[in-house]
Amino acid sequence: MQPLNSLSPGQLRQKIRRGEFTGPTAGLAAGFAQANLLIVNQAQAYDFLLFCQRNPQACPLLDVTDVGSAVSRYAAPGADIRTDLPRYRIYRHGVLEEEVCDISAHWQDDMVAFLIGCSFSFESALLANDVPVRHIEDNHNVPMYISNRQCRPAGQFSGPMVVSMRPMPTEKVVRAVQVTSRFPGVHGAPVHIGDPAALGIGDLAQPDFGNASRLNEGEVPVFWACGVTPQAVAMHSKPPLAITHAPGHMLICDVRNEQLGVI
Amino acid sequence: MQPLNSLSPGQLRQKIRRGEFTGPTAGLAAGFAQANLLIVNQAQAYDFLLFCQRNPQACPLLDVTDVGSAVSRYAAPGADIRTDLPRYRIYRHGVLEEEVCDISAHWQDDMVAFLIGCSFSFESALLANDVPVRHIEDNHNVPMYISNRQCRPAGQFSGPMVVSMRPMPTEKVVRAVQVTSRFPGVHGAPVHIGDPAALGIGDLAQPDFGNASRLNEGEVPVFWACGVTPQAVAMHSKPPLAITHAPGHMLICDVRNEQLGVI
Repeated sequence: MQPLNSLSPGQLRQKIRRGEFTGPTAGLAAGFAQANLLIVNQAQAYDFLLFCQRNPQACPLLDVTDVGSAVSRYAAPGADIRTDLPRYRIYRHGVLEEEVCDISAHWQDDMVAFLIGCSFSFESALLANDVPVRHIEDNHNVPMYISNRQCRPAGQFSGPMVVSMRPMPTEKVVRAVQVTSRFPGVHGAPVHIGDPAALGIGDLAQPDFGNASRLNEGEVPVFWACGVTPQAVAMHSKPPLAITHAPGHMLICDVRNEQLGVI
Repeated sequence: MQPLNSLSPGQLRQKIRRGEFTGPTAGLAAGFAQANLLIVNQAQAYDFLLFCQRNPQACPLLDVTDVGSAVSRYAAPGADIRTDLPRYRIYRHGVLEEEVCDISAHWQDDMVAFLIGCSFSFESALLANDVPVRHIEDNHNVPMYISNRQCRPAGQFSGPMVVSMRPMPTEKVVRAVQVTSRFPGVHGAPVHIGDPAALGIGDLAQPDFGNASRLNEGEVPVFWACGVTPQAVAMHSKPPLAITHAPGHMLICDVRNEQLGVI
């Protein structure tokens, strides 16, 4: 059997579609973008699309499907969004109801799927530039914090920006800004460097999501807008029905990370 | 009296609002972004917002107003969109009906205004980098062509990409790509360099809009996605009512050109 990490995006999605792989997708299809998923009904779609337009750092859109279509024509044209992610979460009125590996039975013909850029893309760019990524080194989930920065509201959607944090030696910070600035489609440049209190974060050891990262002597915490923001905001507004990917179980796209670079 | 080109964006808009200036805005409020305007009713707004999301080179959104609000909260918070552009065009079912200096009487409480980035911003960056801009040198409107590239359709909106052309010496082309790549919010990098036939353009001397530019011996035509695209596409789909700026009579924003640079 071919090792998973040698498979193409299409081959991986086939495997996932057949139920042969239901795990997290980190590290798979190296070089290809992976996407956060949020599906809502048409009644919520305009406000959410506008929310993303107004908050491009937290909600960088890779693609939005046509109403009722389960195909992402521009980011993953070969994928069926109902079956090709390893794991989904179903929320009703903002409450998590169940986790499933296939949402065909939940699909409705007025649904719209939003695919949102994921930090996996810029983390490979950081590693390629010799900027360390602690939570990859230590093999845990990235630490995420609810910040005191409010997103720009849009219709029924509003809420605080969730940020992810990566600690690094001072001498790596400039390069980290340069490298991630190239990728506005996957959160782009950091939103803050240094003192967590400036973002209203009291204790780095107590993240709101994920796991705390070690901060070594002399290291600086660097914060990026996080793809958990759109989900947190969408849940906060309690739409009748919302379907998301399960954390870490992303859609593997046909677009390469480098194609998302503006330079 | 203060010369016009020494006035701030807010001072200029006051003057325009009072009916004291009704001309084209090129060259005013140096350093500040100017915006293309398209206003439609809520029934058309979702499809148009999605069209812009799918075609960011032709339709880079600077801001989208809340339904019924004439204030661009993020691009020009001090402006009233109904009075602060020097000249507007009213289209009904895709047909130009009249040109006016104030649209207060036409405003409806379900209207949404789209502000779209304008090439004025990247032209000042080109000039600052010693890349010549022929139509500014020769003081005529930029030449624009309907290309054979189709925009990505969205709902009721579809159509070809309109491109603008700037001729330049071969040795300036690389710098032109670098400079404009920094500004995805105002059309970004060129879409094509060289042979016009590759875009389906038969004769550079016969632009579809604007005026032909001189091409000197050894110069290369460089093509960018053009802000006329969204208007052409919107008109093509014949919405019951659409209001735009009159060509060259833009909204002067409070955002600086450099703030639109991703690096």
